[in-house]
Amino acid sequence: MTKGRKEQQQETKTERKQASTQAFKRPRHTQKVGLVPGSLVYVGDTPSQTTKIHSIIYDTVTIEEVDSSIPDATEGRTLWVGISGLKDVDAIARLGQRFNISPLFLEDILYTDQRPKADRTEGYLFITLRLNHPEAPRMPEEQISLVMGKNFLISFQEQDSDVFDPVVKRLHNAESKLRKLGADVLLHALLDLIVDRYLVLADHLEDDTDEMEELVVNDPDSINASEIHRNKRNIQDLRRSTLPLRDIFSLLSGGSEPLISTTARVYFKDTYDHVLWLVEALDNLRETMQGLMEVYLSSLDTRMNHIMQVLTIISTVFIPLTFITSLYGMNFQYLPPETLKPWGFYGILGICVVLSVVMAWWFKRKKWW
Amino acid sequence: MTKGRKEQQQETKTERKQASTQAFKRPRHTQKVGLVPGSLVYVGDTPSQTTKIHSIIYDTVTIEEVDSSIPDATEGRTLWVGISGLKDVDAIARLGQRFNISPLFLEDILYTDQRPKADRTEGYLFITLRLNHPEAPRMPEEQISLVMGKNFLISFQEQDSDVFDPVVKRLHNAESKLRKLGADVLLHALLDLIVDRYLVLADHLEDDTDEMEELVVNDPDSINASEIHRNKRNIQDLRRSTLPLRDIFSLLSGGSEPLISTTARVYFKDTYDHVLWLVEALDNLRETMQGLMEVYLSSLDTRMNHIMQVLTIISTVFIPLTFITSLYGMNFQYLPPETLKPWGFYGILGICVVLSVVMAWWFKRKKWW
Amino acid sequence: MTKGRKEQQQETKTERKQASTQAFKRPRHTQKVGLVPGSLVYVGDTPSQTTKIHSIIYDTVTIEEVDSSIPDATEGRTLWVGISGLKDVDAIARLGQRFNISPLFLEDILYTDQRPKADRTEGYLFITLRLNHPEAPRMPEEQISLVMGKNFLISFQEQDSDVFDPVVKRLHNAESKLRKLGADVLLHALLDLIVDRYLVLADHLEDDTDEMEELVVNDPDSINASEIHRNKRNIQDLRRSTLPLRDIFSLLSGGSEPLISTTARVYFKDTYDHVLWLVEALDNLRETMQGLMEVYLSSLDTRMNHIMQVLTIISTVFIPLTFITSLYGMNFQYLPPETLKPWGFYGILGICVVLSVVMAWWFKRKKWW
Amino acid sequence: MTKGRKEQQQETKTERKQASTQAFKRPRHTQKVGLVPGSLVYVGDTPSQTTKIHSIIYDTVTIEEVDSSIPDATEGRTLWVGISGLKDVDAIARLGQRFNISPLFLEDILYTDQRPKADRTEGYLFITLRLNHPEAPRMPEEQISLVMGKNFLISFQEQDSDVFDPVVKRLHNAESKLRKLGADVLLHALLDLIVDRYLVLADHLEDDTDEMEELVVNDPDSINASEIHRNKRNIQDLRRSTLPLRDIFSLLSGGSEPLISTTARVYFKDTYDHVLWLVEALDNLRETMQGLMEVYLSSLDTRMNHIMQVLTIISTVFIPLTFITSLYGMNFQYLPPETLKPWGFYGILGICVVLSVVMAWWFKRKKWW
Amino acid sequence: MTKGRKEQQQETKTERKQASTQAFKRPRHTQKVGLVPGSLVYVGDTPSQTTKIHSIIYDTVTIEEVDSSIPDATEGRTLWVGISGLKDVDAIARLGQRFNISPLFLEDILYTDQRPKADRTEGYLFITLRLNHPEAPRMPEEQISLVMGKNFLISFQEQDSDVFDPVVKRLHNAESKLRKLGADVLLHALLDLIVDRYLVLADHLEDDTDEMEELVVNDPDSINASEIHRNKRNIQDLRRSTLPLRDIFSLLSGGSEPLISTTARVYFKDTYDHVLWLVEALDNLRETMQGLMEVYLSSLDTRMNHIMQVLTIISTVFIPLTFITSLYGMNFQYLPPETLKPWGFYGILGICVVLSVVMAWWFKRKKWW
Repeated sequence: MTKGRKEQQQETKTERKQASTQAFKRPRHTQKVGLVPGSLVYVGDTPSQTTKIHSIIYDTVTIEEVDSSIPDATEGRTLWVGISGLKDVDAIARLGQRFNISPLFLEDILYTDQRPKADRTEGYLFITLRLNHPEAPRMPEEQISLVMGKNFLISFQEQDSDVFDPVVKRLHNAESKLRKLGADVLLHALLDLIVDRYLVLADHLEDDTDEMEELVVNDPDSINASEIHRNKRNIQDLRRSTLPLRDIFSLLSGGSEPLISTTARVYFKDTYDHVLWLVEALDNLRETMQGLMEVYLSSLDTRMNHIMQVLTIISTVFIPLTFITSLYGMNFQYLPPETLKPWGFYGILGICVVLSVVMAWWFKRKKWW
Repeated sequence: MTKGRKEQQQETKTERKQASTQAFKRPRHTQKVGLVPGSLVYVGDTPSQTTKIHSIIYDTVTIEEVDSSIPDATEGRTLWVGISGLKDVDAIARLGQRFNISPLFLEDILYTDQRPKADRTEGYLFITLRLNHPEAPRMPEEQISLVMGKNFLISFQEQDSDVFDPVVKRLHNAESKLRKLGADVLLHALLDLIVDRYLVLADHLEDDTDEMEELVVNDPDSINASEIHRNKRNIQDLRRSTLPLRDIFSLLSGGSEPLISTTARVYFKDTYDHVLWLVEALDNLRETMQGLMEVYLSSLDTRMNHIMQVLTIISTVFIPLTFITSLYGMNFQYLPPETLKPWGFYGILGICVVLSVVMAWWFKRKKWW
Repeated sequence: MTKGRKEQQQETKTERKQASTQAFKRPRHTQKVGLVPGSLVYVGDTPSQTTKIHSIIYDTVTIEEVDSSIPDATEGRTLWVGISGLKDVDAIARLGQRFNISPLFLEDILYTDQRPKADRTEGYLFITLRLNHPEAPRMPEEQISLVMGKNFLISFQEQDSDVFDPVVKRLHNAESKLRKLGADVLLHALLDLIVDRYLVLADHLEDDTDEMEELVVNDPDSINASEIHRNKRNIQDLRRSTLPLRDIFSLLSGGSEPLISTTARVYFKDTYDHVLWLVEALDNLRETMQGLMEVYLSSLDTRMNHIMQVLTIISTVFIPLTFITSLYGMNFQYLPPETLKPWGFYGILGICVVLSVVMAWWFKRKKWW
Repeated sequence: MTKGRKEQQQETKTERKQASTQAFKRPRHTQKVGLVPGSLVYVGDTPSQTTKIHSIIYDTVTIEEVDSSIPDATEGRTLWVGISGLKDVDAIARLGQRFNISPLFLEDILYTDQRPKADRTEGYLFITLRLNHPEAPRMPEEQISLVMGKNFLISFQEQDSDVFDPVVKRLHNAESKLRKLGADVLLHALLDLIVDRYLVLADHLEDDTDEMEELVVNDPDSINASEIHRNKRNIQDLRRSTLPLRDIFSLLSGGSEPLISTTARVYFKDTYDHVLWLVEALDNLRETMQGLMEVYLSSLDTRMNHIMQVLTIISTVFIPLTFITSLYGMNFQYLPPETLKPWGFYGILGICVVLSVVMAWWFKRKKWW
Repeated sequence: MTKGRKEQQQETKTERKQASTQAFKRPRHTQKVGLVPGSLVYVGDTPSQTTKIHSIIYDTVTIEEVDSSIPDATEGRTLWVGISGLKDVDAIARLGQRFNISPLFLEDILYTDQRPKADRTEGYLFITLRLNHPEAPRMPEEQISLVMGKNFLISFQEQDSDVFDPVVKRLHNAESKLRKLGADVLLHALLDLIVDRYLVLADHLEDDTDEMEELVVNDPDSINASEIHRNKRNIQDLRRSTLPLRDIFSLLSGGSEPLISTTARVYFKDTYDHVLWLVEALDNLRETMQGLMEVYLSSLDTRMNHIMQVLTIISTVFIPLTFITSLYGMNFQYLPPETLKPWGFYGILGICVVLSVVMAWWFKRKKWW
């Protein structure tokens, strides 16, 4: 809070430029070759963190927060279990058994380089997607998994962060719609928060692109192809995380999912529109960056043309003059009569000056400078 | 009216070239992160403008215009409520309640960077799309939202403009078809006006492209890659606003929408054809601009070739000659006999002239100039 | 007939190269902004021409041609009304009323920059498409509209041309299949003639491309990037007119259209195959032109390489030699002993010759020439 | 047989490189403009050849070959009529009448630039596709048409070749499956032979591409952009002939065709897999060639860089040295004292040597050579 | 085991760079032209290896391994026959007869350049796909074919490798799920192992790409276009093998296949997700490599610009100076007075120094160095 907003934004941008390729470092598949499907192995390299469990159980009247243990979900109340930190594989396995989650889904939760997807099984929906940190680009993308049943929702995060705090706050407000509706609207609230971060990151990338466009057009020397490439790749990486969101929200807002009520469906449709907007915006950015690269390359060519012109003008003006003078530098017995005249030297010098003025005028007319 | 049409067009074009990137400046998503869906926040940065309400109620016989208040829609009469300026969020919220519009749609109306879309709910159709100002490119794109019910239509504009005046005029004509048909045909009349502006803007871009093509082919020095890039981006931006129109008009002309009568459907189909034409025209323009960039880059190369040829001819002609003269400039005791002959100097000069003529002829034959 | 076929072809090609961009000049949309849909405005800029009406009515036994007036279509006879010249908007409006054609279609007929399309309404089929003039590329594309009912067909042309003469001739032949079958086969006959022109134009473009390929490969100096671009654009423009033909013929040959008999359907399917061939041929041409541009650009680079080599060889050979001679040109009291020897001058000259031979051999070995 | 296989392959490759563009010379559409659909015109330009008819009729027990006349197809026997040479239009028309083939199909058979397609009518299947000559690239592609009925198959070839000989041989083997099964399996046998040729040609193109890749990477001087372009175009042309094969075999193996038995369907499915393999292989080759072009162009740039380095090193080393010597070549009364010393000349020479060594070392450090 | 893991990885990478194009050497189609479909010919060129048969038969209680002979599959027990080495065509033909495998499938098994596919016939599923060796890139890709019936599975490998050893080990564990479930889960276990290798290879290619990106951005001289091209081609080749996997796993997880139980289907769906991940990752890599090529090419241009600047600065500074000195080197009777002054030489030298300092400052200001 001590730093100004402007200052912080500047830092974030610099980080985004430098850290981007690192941010997408992902776990190696070698770690899992030959394992039985459903083997629970946590592959993340986030700094060691214990697995924390935090539960909230609420209905229209009451709300309770419980740490470490998980209350029983009862009819008419909605239970939200938040898991942060995936180190304690056993605790997650026990949780899985209690809520009857398929081992294959548990494996997906732990293998933190999962393709974003929504899957449904009897009794619950399974969603996994990636969480951005637009305000801290050096922080790697995180995997968020969500399991939603009739009256419960379990969220799995890699790190203990405050991403979902706005929803917790809204839950504590007894007037909030969230309190009156079920787990499906809670699911939407969480997903909407995550998608909002994508939108903010897209905003940042759009700003970077505009700024780069400004630079390429007005001051191409202050930029190089690698920076353009890096921005393009940032866009491309975000797009890759975004594309599967379309399928997820298309499913959730589609109406064929019995666990999603009509009310929630309308909310999901709204977020779906944002996702579509996002995909189109990123496609547009990608095309713009492609064009920028071309403009940048052409500015290199233009610069080369300019350098060559300078060289050619200098050479073309002086090389013939030097020939003339070297002609009179020859050690001949009989030289032309002008070499014996007092005005000889100045005559030749004058011819040289006239010649160079004529050539300068000629290049001027050809618009070489 | 004091300015000639030609002059004004020229100004418009210049503005389009300079202002385009600004025109598409859009609200930041950061403003909305963490808000409850359905929160009404107006994000536009248009100069402060009060929210004006102007209603027109008509049937085949009578027509009434009311300012500031909204008459009740009665059976057999069509009510058109025009809202311009979205600053007064409360007024819009009240309107929403009176006409029973979903808060999510109201949010879309106020969040003025919405992806163009058509949505239907019980009782009404919701359409949002973007309005161009082909005659004033510096003016940002505006968002127009339309809510159509059985016998009413509400239009939301960001600014108080005269875009819809032609329709108002037609309504006042008792013979007009508009008066005899319902809100669906009124909806078409408004949308058709908006699409017409897209067509005019596409015309302008096509003119710019033709002019640029002319320049690139005949006078590549008078243009640079950034201008080509900017025109390409203008086309790309218009295309991005246009693509969702396809879905909107496909829905409206498709026959599955109960609020659209068969008569109106035929009209929508006609406008749909224009939208398809537009998309194809923009795709074509995009491809042409891509090709133009290549031609422009090749013209840089050709120019470089030309410069190099001049340099090479000059150097190739004079460097050997200078070698010959410098040979005779050596301070040797015994020089070749020609240095002692009166014709010596002129002999060497003659050899130089012959050599340069031979080389000039050689380059001529190689078509270097 | 006085000119040879070869000669005429050559002229046509030159025209195609120059006139192409003009040929596709199209009416401005500004002319129609704000007009009521169905307003009849003729926007073409073809030289003023009166609207001519020419009708042919025939059955297996009789055939009659009538100018200016339109006979009544009777059961068992087929009526073909040919309209050429669209200036007389009133006459066309009257015709529309008599044959009960929707005002929206009449508007399409008159607005001569319509997207090619086929549309069906109760009682008749409406088709509009573009007519090429492969033998006169300077002539702008024309819009042909066709309205076919149970036993009549109306054709609208912008200009009074002899495009449909082959069909008239076949109609006069009592043995012709056309006489025995109905308006649907007549429709096919006209459309087939139009598609044939597309095929001929594609042939021409293929010839131009082959010729250009020949030039780019063998004599890149005789061509420039703009010409390649223009040919690419010609192909692209033809492709744009062709793509909608697919939809038209897919509809006509599809079997769901009651006005098309099974016999006619087989004919339409045949023409549909030609259209598919055309689209593939144009895609292929487009890709070839894209490749040609690359080859052309690489030839510029190769040429530059060659020029640089010449410059570098000349400079590299002579600059060191000039250094040697200028060394001996220094005015020192004590010069090396060779400057006092009679063979000194020739010794240095010899060293220079040997040096240049060595360098020439070195460049030869490096394959620089 | 006198030539070695290796040698022959080499010749074929050279031919492929030179003749490819010619091989795809196709008939002009102008020849058919305005003709009635179903008009029989042979447009091929293959050297004049009489139309030969060769029939084979067989069942599990007997087999008979008949020249020039056509035996009657009887129940339980399969008749194969092979037509080679399409000059005799009348004979083909008669054959069409006897076997009740639609005039439109006959037209397709004779117009030898047909898009490959499969069509079905009552009683028979019509297939037309293109035959490659991988072993003789200079020979133009040929059109093969096949008409298959319940117990007969008619094959039309443009030239009298031995393409189908392997099938004839298998027919003569009484143990062969072909003898036991019907016309549908015979159809497969012929089509399989034709597709095999596509596979062989794709092999050849893959070899050419590998070889070109080898050259571009290791010896870019020995190749030029036109050769790369030509190979790309060969691939593109083969791909164009191949794509429609997908539709043909999809239809034949699809199960909805009553003339194809379940046994034959399995065979067609197998060939369909080959066609899919072929399309993927050609797409892959196309992409590889595109990349190769880029590598080639970059090699031109690298080479240019190298040439420029040589020039720059030479110039940068000698131009300053020449300046020093020319300084001492000035005709001044009073020159610096070193010009009067015996060691003066050698001193300057020494300075020049040291300077050039320093610069050489500097360029070495900058990795310029 | 003696070598470190790091070291081995380095070797593998070098091999991947060199051997890649060889690794995909494939059999020629010429070997099969004209053969009857279903002809069994082994076309692989792997070093001669005898065909080994190794069978495992198991149920929940017992497990038996048999070499060379094949036990009878009985109800309730699952039989896995592993064939390695395809030289012994007869043995494979006998096996085919015993298990009633279609000759066309046997042909596919032996023709080891098959497009990956899944096919079903009465009673069994046939799958063929390609096996990578990520740890030994010089080893060619191998074709694996799998035939699965109600209670048996036959696997065909080209070479006798230990690829499937992890599954064998799991089978020997009586607690393993594999033992309790049928042949469909065994099929999944094998396919999952193969797909895991694809993932590992994609990891390797991603590492190579990251490393190349690092080099291109920071040290473009240490890399050349061919290496970038080779990496792109490796990616492209892996993508080509991967794309058909989508169809295979879409079929296996789709639910319409009676031989796959619901349990197994869930497993296949899990692997299907990995395949989708793989395709997206490869698309992403391909796009990145395309961008890298552009960055690399621009670095060549930048370098050229730099070289040209050096040359231009040197020339521009020294050429005018040399002109001045050569002016005073002319042999004129009357030279300007400064040539007679003691300070003359140093005056000119001073002017030269000043001139060069001015030019150096001018170039500095223009940011040329």
